[in-house]
Amino acid sequence: MIERIHTTARMSKIVKHNGTVYLCGQVGDGDTVAAQTKECLGRVDALLIEAGSSRDNILQAIVWLADINDFKAMNEVWDAWVPNGHAPARACGEARLARSDLKVEIIITAAIQTEQ
Amino acid sequence: MIERIHTTARMSKIVKHNGTVYLCGQVGDGDTVAAQTKECLGRVDALLIEAGSSRDNILQAIVWLADINDFKAMNEVWDAWVPNGHAPARACGEARLARSDLKVEIIITAAIQTEQ
Amino acid sequence: MIERIHTTARMSKIVKHNGTVYLCGQVGDGDTVAAQTKECLGRVDALLIEAGSSRDNILQAIVWLADINDFKAMNEVWDAWVPNGHAPARACGEARLARSDLKVEIIITAAIQTEQ
Repeated sequence: MIERIHTTARMSKIVKHNGTVYLCGQVGDGDTVAAQTKECLGRVDALLIEAGSSRDNILQAIVWLADINDFKAMNEVWDAWVPNGHAPARACGEARLARSDLKVEIIITAAIQTEQ
Repeated sequence: MIERIHTTARMSKIVKHNGTVYLCGQVGDGDTVAAQTKECLGRVDALLIEAGSSRDNILQAIVWLADINDFKAMNEVWDAWVPNGHAPARACGEARLARSDLKVEIIITAAIQTEQ
Repeated sequence: MIERIHTTARMSKIVKHNGTVYLCGQVGDGDTVAAQTKECLGRVDALLIEAGSSRDNILQAIVWLADINDFKAMNEVWDAWVPNGHAPARACGEARLARSDLKVEIIITAAIQTEQ
């Protein structure tokens, strides 16, 4: 009843259970928070499609910014990416991340389309 | 199968799926953490009722404090608000928030009563 | 439909709903992040078993480190603890915790075995 995809000793990138999919915290490469957010959300797209979901079906997003002053720049990319009428519940706070060059990390919980 | 309420380009205040409701991170106005927590929890109450849930049905609460030294003052308001016997799983950590005047933000996941 | 275990005025250690169990943020005693992580994960084990789940069935783990420089030391304990092939979705960020001696806190969401 639990399906795990891309599983290492530390984490799975995708975990599916009971119609819900949990992604591991996603980050992106890039010199700016905008670039990192764009790549991060591209990875979210790919993982959600692999999980049988999509950006239309996100339930909750928790956004961590290494520097909360990046809030506006992150949001410009985020707002453009979210499908009209399908925005998830979201929270955003500041947290230093696992690598010092990382500016943003996003934790996604979504619904699996095939169970809808 | 996903119901979204109060949806903007950035987020939905309420997202319902599979008997569970996710609220966007709630904050409150006020000069003190106690005042902000009180208003924040009032907003949680209103959103949960709108979602067909209530403070009796909270599953998980993640509390972010801009200053962890506000832990005790936040808890005094929190403990008085939680219905006897209905306390959720909770975690509390420090995170600077989207606006510099914000002292507390609470992320709520709850059960929908009508599916119980 | 909601089952709460070890419930105080502030929080429940275990909340079960709809095949999913939410644990309150777990911490551990000890002088090092390794010692605290070990004890924290021991408490997770005990609570999951009490909830009718186990470390094989974790869906999502959110790890807060008071000092992100403890990332490697925490991971050594974490990686050894996670059962082969059963790693959850995970995210790790820095957050100061409720007591100044706390170095790590882990928020667990898991599946209940008996409903699988």
